Parts: sequence; C-alpha cells; structure tokens
Amino acid sequence: MKQQIPVTSLQRLPVYLNYLKSLENTDRNISSGAIAAALGMGEVLVRKDLAYTSAQGKTRIGYRCGELISAIEEYLGCNRVLPAVIFGAGGLGRALMSYGGFKNYGINIVAAFDNDPDKTDKFVADIRICRVSEAAEVIRRHNVKLAVICVPASVAQEVCDTLVGCGICAVLNFAPVLLKVPEGVNVRNIDVAANLAILSSQI
Amino acid sequence: MKQQIPVTSLQRLPVYLNYLKSLENTDRNISSGAIAAALGMGEVLVRKDLAYTSAQGKTRIGYRCGELISAIEEYLGCNRVLPAVIFGAGGLGRALMSYGGFKNYGINIVAAFDNDPDKTDKFVADIRICRVSEAAEVIRRHNVKLAVICVPASVAQEVCDTLVGCGICAVLNFAPVLLKVPEGVNVRNIDVAANLAILSSQI
Repeated sequence: MKQQIPVTSLQRLPVYLNYLKSLENTDRNISSGAIAAALGMGEVLVRKDLAYTSAQGKTRIGYRCGELISAIEEYLGCNRVLPAVIFGAGGLGRALMSYGGFKNYGINIVAAFDNDPDKTDKFVADIRICRVSEAAEVIRRHNVKLAVICVPASVAQEVCDTLVGCGICAVLNFAPVLLKVPEGVNVRNIDVAANLAILSSQI
Repeated sequence: MKQQIPVTSLQRLPVYLNYLKSLENTDRNISSGAIAAALGMGEVLVRKDLAYTSAQGKTRIGYRCGELISAIEEYLGCNRVLPAVIFGAGGLGRALMSYGGFKNYGINIVAAFDNDPDKTDKFVADIRICRVSEAAEVIRRHNVKLAVICVPASVAQEVCDTLVGCGICAVLNFAPVLLKVPEGVNVRNIDVAANLAILSSQI
C-alpha cells in the first residue's frame, strides 16, 4: 500500500470486493454510482475509496469489473500472506484467534502466546497457544513482523519490549496504555472504551 | 464533550489523569512541558490534548494541578455514569465484559445479551447475560442509549435493527460489516483486521 489510507476507507474495500465478486458477470463495466447505489453508500465516497487502489475508472464508462476486483485484491494483499502472532490468550485473544476476518486482508495468525500453563499447548481455531519461552523461535521461524497485544495493561509494556526484541516492528495494541517503542516500530492502539466514550459524547 | 475529539487524543486523557493523580501535591502549578517530559510525549501534543478540556493553562505558569484533574474528569464524564449494553456474549463480548477500562470514561455495562441458552442467565464480571427477548425491557429500564455489537457479521444488521428499535442511538460495532442505521443513530466501527492491515502496509 503506497498511500496512507484511512481505516474507514480500508474497511470498506472488502465490502466492495464481496459485492463485485457476487456479480454474475464480471466481464463488463461498472460505475462507481452503480456500486454506491447497490451498497447504499455515497458515490463520491466510493470513488475516493477506490482511488486508493490501482483501478482506473473512466468517465461515463466506469471500471472494468474484473480489473477492479484484481486491483482491490492486490491492494488488500489477498495474494500474499503475511504472518502475525497474538500475545495473550485470554477472552479477547481467543476471540481474535477465532475471528475469520484477518484472511480478508491476507493476514495469517500463525501462533498465540500466553504465560498461563493452563492455556498453553492448546489450540483455538487451529492456532496453537505457545509458551512465552517459545516466542523468539516461533517469530523467527515464521519471519513474523506483526503482533497483536491482548494482555492486561500492567504487563503490556514488558510484552511489547519482548516482541520488539524478537524482531516485531508493527504492533496492534488492545491494552489501554501508551506503549513506548523504539523508532521504526509502528503501534496502533485500539482503545475500545475510548471509542465508546466518543459515541457517548454524541448522545 | 462539546468538540469532536480524535480518538487518539481521547485515549491519552486517562493517561494524563492517572499521572496527575499520582502526584503527591496537587495544590500547585504544573506545565504542559513537565507533563510531557514525565510521560515521554511531545509538549505540543499534550497542550493540544488538554485544550479539549475546560482547563486553562497560563503562559510560563501552567495549569493549577487540581483544576486540571477536575477538568479532565469532567471531560471524560467520570462524574456521571452512562449505562451501556453488550450484544453477543462470545469470546469478544465476554472479554469486553471483563474489561475494566470502561469505568475510566464513566461508562457502566449494565447487561449483555445472547441468543444461546447455554450462555444466558450466567454472569461474567458481575454482568448478567440476558436472553434476547429481555432486551427491550432491560434497555428501557436502565435508559440505555449505547450498545456494543459483538455478534457474527451475518446477524449484525438484524441485531442493530433490534437495538435501534429499543431506543439505542449509539452503536460500537465489532462485526466486519457496514451497518445501515436511520438518521440520528451514530455508529463507530472497530475493524480489528483493517487496523492490522494498515500496520502491515508499513512493514
């Protein structure tokens, strides 16, 4: 992905993709207006979203349907597989292991880790929960750069340091703390409560 | 909250609050620079974040520490309690029920709902998992306006329609679908996979 895409646009791309693939005949043209109408969205929004991909729409003609599908798939990385790990196999970690949505973006969860011996060496959705002592080896073997942190806030920084030490350079953090990372490591935070608080301010 | 605050700013406010409360003496002045230094953040960022609250900093003097605490607490709604419900008590729903972070923002999860009889009438973190047939009554009784949707994508729209019918006007949606809602209802989406995909584009 060349350009920094807003998460709201990115999460609409699989929606377009599913719709386009549901069409019986993809060997035809389709306009951004037709896509917008079918999905109950604004036409300008659809056009802006699709502009992040390499697809080229033509005025009054639209997109070649098959080319648009390929462009979205390429953008979403459906054709490559990027390995990722989940750290923390509590309720949230296990929910994410069972969650099928990562495949939409070409991301494959190869392992999870937990420090609770009652949880390790078990499988959730065919993903093994490994011991923390195995992390360095598993991450190296699968060449993992991407990790999801789902541990309690009190240990999140320590876990993050360990992961960075193992070569992780992109972290999705669910713990409600601000992680300190060295330069070159990217962190995105998902603070569920903060999102709910923003909604509550609009009531 | 009068002004639309970015989620990244909002999730830093509890961090400032915890830091300020950890100070032994709050009956003194503190500058945005001192806060920034203590938390390893940029001073401009701190000042911008705090400007969303009603706190008034003075040049070369800073903020009255106690007033800043009150302003952040007021902004975060720590002094009011807003009831919310969780729909779907699978792995993610149960993880959110156990998650303590909502209290930071004055949000109280009063009930969860699930259509699986094996899950209902049980408690997670003192929150009862109710039958779906109870939703209207529970939502009305607690005057709930805020709901979190953690059901599979295939049933999310149906659940959303039910919730809106019960008077919910703010929805935090974890299902990877775009929900259609009537005007006046706010939706925020948390698409975990999309966030991970954005990170993966930066590797």
